Amino acid sequence: MANVAFFGLGNMGGPMAANLVKAGHSVKVFDLYDQAVQQLLEQGATTASSNQQLVDGADFIVSMLPAGKHVEGLYLGEDGLINYIKPGALVIDSSTIDKPTVVNVASALAEKGINFVDAPVSGGVGGAIAGTLSFMVGGEDADFATAKPLLDNMGKNIFHAGSYGAGQIAKVCNNMLLGILMAGTSEALQLGIANGLDPKKLSEIMLQSSGRNWTLELYNPCPDVLENVPSSNNYEGGFMVDLMAKDLGLALDTAVNSQSSTPMGALARSLFAIHAGQGNGKKDFSSIFKMFDKE
Amino acid sequence: MANVAFFGLGNMGGPMAANLVKAGHSVKVFDLYDQAVQQLLEQGATTASSNQQLVDGADFIVSMLPAGKHVEGLYLGEDGLINYIKPGALVIDSSTIDKPTVVNVASALAEKGINFVDAPVSGGVGGAIAGTLSFMVGGEDADFATAKPLLDNMGKNIFHAGSYGAGQIAKVCNNMLLGILMAGTSEALQLGIANGLDPKKLSEIMLQSSGRNWTLELYNPCPDVLENVPSSNNYEGGFMVDLMAKDLGLALDTAVNSQSSTPMGALARSLFAIHAGQGNGKKDFSSIFKMFDKE
Amino acid sequence: MANVAFFGLGNMGGPMAANLVKAGHSVKVFDLYDQAVQQLLEQGATTASSNQQLVDGADFIVSMLPAGKHVEGLYLGEDGLINYIKPGALVIDSSTIDKPTVVNVASALAEKGINFVDAPVSGGVGGAIAGTLSFMVGGEDADFATAKPLLDNMGKNIFHAGSYGAGQIAKVCNNMLLGILMAGTSEALQLGIANGLDPKKLSEIMLQSSGRNWTLELYNPCPDVLENVPSSNNYEGGFMVDLMAKDLGLALDTAVNSQSSTPMGALARSLFAIHAGQGNGKKDFSSIFKMFDKE
Amino acid sequence: MANVAFFGLGNMGGPMAANLVKAGHSVKVFDLYDQAVQQLLEQGATTASSNQQLVDGADFIVSMLPAGKHVEGLYLGEDGLINYIKPGALVIDSSTIDKPTVVNVASALAEKGINFVDAPVSGGVGGAIAGTLSFMVGGEDADFATAKPLLDNMGKNIFHAGSYGAGQIAKVCNNMLLGILMAGTSEALQLGIANGLDPKKLSEIMLQSSGRNWTLELYNPCPDVLENVPSSNNYEGGFMVDLMAKDLGLALDTAVNSQSSTPMGALARSLFAIHAGQGNGKKDFSSIFKMFDKE
Repeated sequence: MANVAFFGLGNMGGPMAANLVKAGHSVKVFDLYDQAVQQLLEQGATTASSNQQLVDGADFIVSMLPAGKHVEGLYLGEDGLINYIKPGALVIDSSTIDKPTVVNVASALAEKGINFVDAPVSGGVGGAIAGTLSFMVGGEDADFATAKPLLDNMGKNIFHAGSYGAGQIAKVCNNMLLGILMAGTSEALQLGIANGLDPKKLSEIMLQSSGRNWTLELYNPCPDVLENVPSSNNYEGGFMVDLMAKDLGLALDTAVNSQSSTPMGALARSLFAIHAGQGNGKKDFSSIFKMFDKE
Repeated sequence: MANVAFFGLGNMGGPMAANLVKAGHSVKVFDLYDQAVQQLLEQGATTASSNQQLVDGADFIVSMLPAGKHVEGLYLGEDGLINYIKPGALVIDSSTIDKPTVVNVASALAEKGINFVDAPVSGGVGGAIAGTLSFMVGGEDADFATAKPLLDNMGKNIFHAGSYGAGQIAKVCNNMLLGILMAGTSEALQLGIANGLDPKKLSEIMLQSSGRNWTLELYNPCPDVLENVPSSNNYEGGFMVDLMAKDLGLALDTAVNSQSSTPMGALARSLFAIHAGQGNGKKDFSSIFKMFDKE
Repeated sequence: MANVAFFGLGNMGGPMAANLVKAGHSVKVFDLYDQAVQQLLEQGATTASSNQQLVDGADFIVSMLPAGKHVEGLYLGEDGLINYIKPGALVIDSSTIDKPTVVNVASALAEKGINFVDAPVSGGVGGAIAGTLSFMVGGEDADFATAKPLLDNMGKNIFHAGSYGAGQIAKVCNNMLLGILMAGTSEALQLGIANGLDPKKLSEIMLQSSGRNWTLELYNPCPDVLENVPSSNNYEGGFMVDLMAKDLGLALDTAVNSQSSTPMGALARSLFAIHAGQGNGKKDFSSIFKMFDKE
Repeated sequence: MANVAFFGLGNMGGPMAANLVKAGHSVKVFDLYDQAVQQLLEQGATTASSNQQLVDGADFIVSMLPAGKHVEGLYLGEDGLINYIKPGALVIDSSTIDKPTVVNVASALAEKGINFVDAPVSGGVGGAIAGTLSFMVGGEDADFATAKPLLDNMGKNIFHAGSYGAGQIAKVCNNMLLGILMAGTSEALQLGIANGLDPKKLSEIMLQSSGRNWTLELYNPCPDVLENVPSSNNYEGGFMVDLMAKDLGLALDTAVNSQSSTPMGALARSLFAIHAGQGNGKKDFSSIFKMFDKE
């Protein structure tokens, strides 16, 4: 069993850390919110009063933070972990951030002999609790091999996408495509409905035809076609419009930086941003279906 | 076994008629090209020298024509079949045409006691030959039940989408979604490639994640990820760009007529139309992937 | 002065006919609504009880109807005007309709020796009343020359766009571009506002720079930048969203029929259709500005 | 007359500095390319061998650099100008960069008592040489007033857009709108051409109608409608596709950062990026017209 330091105990990070404790690791945790720390202590984690003490003796440092600036601050900022992590330890950053930040942090750590993988996740809060997340990992083969057993304690599908930052890119591509699938499936169903088709029947036909896709199969945006999905629960729960808009924004930034053209992804970003701007930011992202309603 | 009259022996209609012959039906065929007729005669069909004789005694009349005006002409035009088909017979029109034409023809036939279903197909020439087409059928329950055994001889999935014209609408919705999936998957893969990912690896990751869709699974647009798909064969064979552009145009017309908004489908139509305009109309539609290349 | 028969006395047709009366022509009028006819009689027009009598002796027949089917019905339908108009007379159809209908009607009339121009207008109800409409005319040079003096009584700019149907195409192109200008100007202004700019100041800057366009100059979509425009009057009056969506739909149909790609126009159509679907169909089309608001 | 230090003597910066010399100012210049410096020396500028000496005694420091990182490096980097500029002097940065960098640099300078305005330009190389550039200025009223006489020596329209960074935002909004106008005008003209209209005639009609805009008036993208524009010169000269794609990328980043939705601008960016990727990056941006050609 390993010594782990875990930073960031939010909706995702909290249950991920808890799964590491359950798996028998010795886990020291930190979060700006005492309550989040307290909850983990009750489940068997420990904590410490300084960054130095938190990473003292740690073989793995896991971080799950909101944005690139937080990751940069934690590792490279004032009193940054870079000063305390022991050479040979492995940093696993599961935050969803931009690739340039990943490369910047990984390079700085490498100069001190500290290893790094980026390992953003998909699967949501439910997957974090159940330990069934997907991890998209960027980094060297050896580091991926070292990280894998730990990631197995928190997830089900562990992919090695390539070198530093490749995990972030894979996630950005996948989520951009997801946004496209959801918007496209929504308007196809609405076009059918407006022309007299039953959405259940149309969904069934397209699922067995070339329109088949993940959203149609597991996350139908039309109410009452599938049970136990957000659309059948007033678009509550699930993956928020604001988060999809954020991920699509990250995809656009990535496209702009690499001179790539992503017309469908750019349009999907515009649609979700309009939808968020109309007061739907906290609803599930399948509510984009409602944008194509006719009053 | 039934008496069938079959009109339209093109790339699709020819093998469909052949499958009816193989199934043991008595099939009289017609096409403007004598050679197409000749080929079917060799396989056991018969023909006749007038519309009247062709449908004489037919229980089923099947048509597979290029556009709405041909369908209207065949049934309602000068010397139209409406004058000769016996009351109680069933017309199965498998052409991909607009719903208003379907309704117009079906209504006129109904006044003479002739039954009608629209039954457009998907599955391509390969599916027509193998008898594995999907049929999306619009019409009354009783007529669907009557048509089903015959359609089973030509296809694998036979869907009852709803009343008159519903088959056409279902096909339009599915193919619009297919166009969206193909364009979206192409740009997601290209975004990954431009940022250093291996397209095989990225495809594998997205296939097991929320980006999963029919094109990624069976028709990957990036060369050499899948074998035996058009992208690995210089984008030859398969479903032509011109045809995808036509289907997306039909989807847009349907959207305009029903005051529906289909932003993703409309953009996909623009992209495929640009691609066709740049000289790629006869290539497989997965070649849209090349539009996002960087020279 | 000429003998004119005028069909269609709606919001546009009524004041157009009135301007012909004022110019001293002898005008016989017809509309399905008696009240509309009554109003013109009070202004000096006459009427008659049959199509035959209405066009009896007419040198010019002007029509202003809602859609292609009405135009086709009036001229070619049962008891159609084609049976009564004298050879050598000139039909001026000012309805905004599709080019195929224009060509169909014009050709049928030509066989009887009746001349035809399509002459759709822009300039709105205000322009119709003031006699300052723009006419975009399709037809032969001689017919344009014949029509011009009459059109001068109803409008200010009379353009000869080309042969039959060219007037319709010119109007469709212009109005598609107008939709693009309005949507694009709206989002540019909103982007500035979201980043702290004063919309008046930004409008002034762009008006003197390369962003200058008709909407920015005469029809600013941001409230209180210009006086006496719909945006400063709660988006009332002006050109309705429903009508802009209709014109953009006509543009898309034209693009589909000619295998043209109009990505910006197709997107504008989607945005206006969504906006209409959200209950804004009767507002002025500059209200698309509100779609980019953030709550 | 003022003491000016000028950094960045590229295609734009070189002639701008030359105009300051012509106006009688005492100008010290610097560029990484000796040849660029040499050219200015011949026109009456001076230079110096260190940053310290270059800004020694300068009332104005003007910079014209390619990207935000260069601006940050020049002022705040190692041996940065912040260490040498005298309190009370005014920095005028005319680079086109992102607002966050502007705010960062301006704030750092302010702490040392150094004043700052951002003043990006439009008008191209021709405008830089002729001294007819437009400047969009962000900064405090007093600093704008101080900068104005100097900017008048280099430009014609000097706009005060708002506080720090507002100049950049105004430029981004205007250029995004310009990209939309150019793409939209191109496809409207092509739609007309595909339906038989003469592009000259159509341009003339739209110029006098509600489709009027800067590109139609001064920069028609269809060859041989206007003389002396890039489209009539094989799309050479003018404003490169690569630069338009860059500005639209900056607009998208701005939209993403402010949660704004800019669907038309995002689509325009995709189209120009595709066009650049197809080998047209060095052509004038009006060549987007060719994308809508049909082979």
